[in-house]
Amino acid sequence: MTQLQVSMCMMLDTFEKYARTDGDPNSLSKSEVKTLLEKEMPEMIKGAKNQKEVDELIKALDFDGDGVVDFEEFMAVVAALTCCFRGVPRSKK
Amino acid sequence: MTQLQVSMCMMLDTFEKYARTDGDPNSLSKSEVKTLLEKEMPEMIKGAKNQKEVDELIKALDFDGDGVVDFEEFMAVVAALTCCFRGVPRSKK
Repeated sequence: MTQLQVSMCMMLDTFEKYARTDGDPNSLSKSEVKTLLEKEMPEMIKGAKNQKEVDELIKALDFDGDGVVDFEEFMAVVAALTCCFRGVPRSKK
Repeated sequence: MTQLQVSMCMMLDTFEKYARTDGDPNSLSKSEVKTLLEKEMPEMIKGAKNQKEVDELIKALDFDGDGVVDFEEFMAVVAALTCCFRGVPRSKK
């Protein structure tokens, strides 16, 4: 497998590991999201170069409606956190 | 580092590796995207359970305008490809 394929599998594995703890195994409940963030990236959240963006992201996770995060939404969160972590400029679109 | 952190670093490393080959190192040009897909996930594209979704994804990459893919867009593509690869139900939103 290529580096990208390995990382994709690891990402999916992480999602599934937390998504199967309660309810629908194809989505993360709000409590599953919180557990995932606490366990998988505590230092990343604390050490981010742009703490304001992280705060906004966490706040945005306090969603309502069906209250679940599917894999695509999870990947969007991961992408945003990676940008914060590395200080990569984010798109202004 | 946790599994998720390792995969995030690998993902960013892959993006940067191809993004720096021409123009802006913070975005992938159309040709950089094509090279990335060809080199990093040829089997994944061929072996996807839902070939139609992959076709649509590749077609969608034929964007115009500024013609570049930033890191967040790249992650959205990776998420979509991972869903195709594993046959995970995608959201209908």
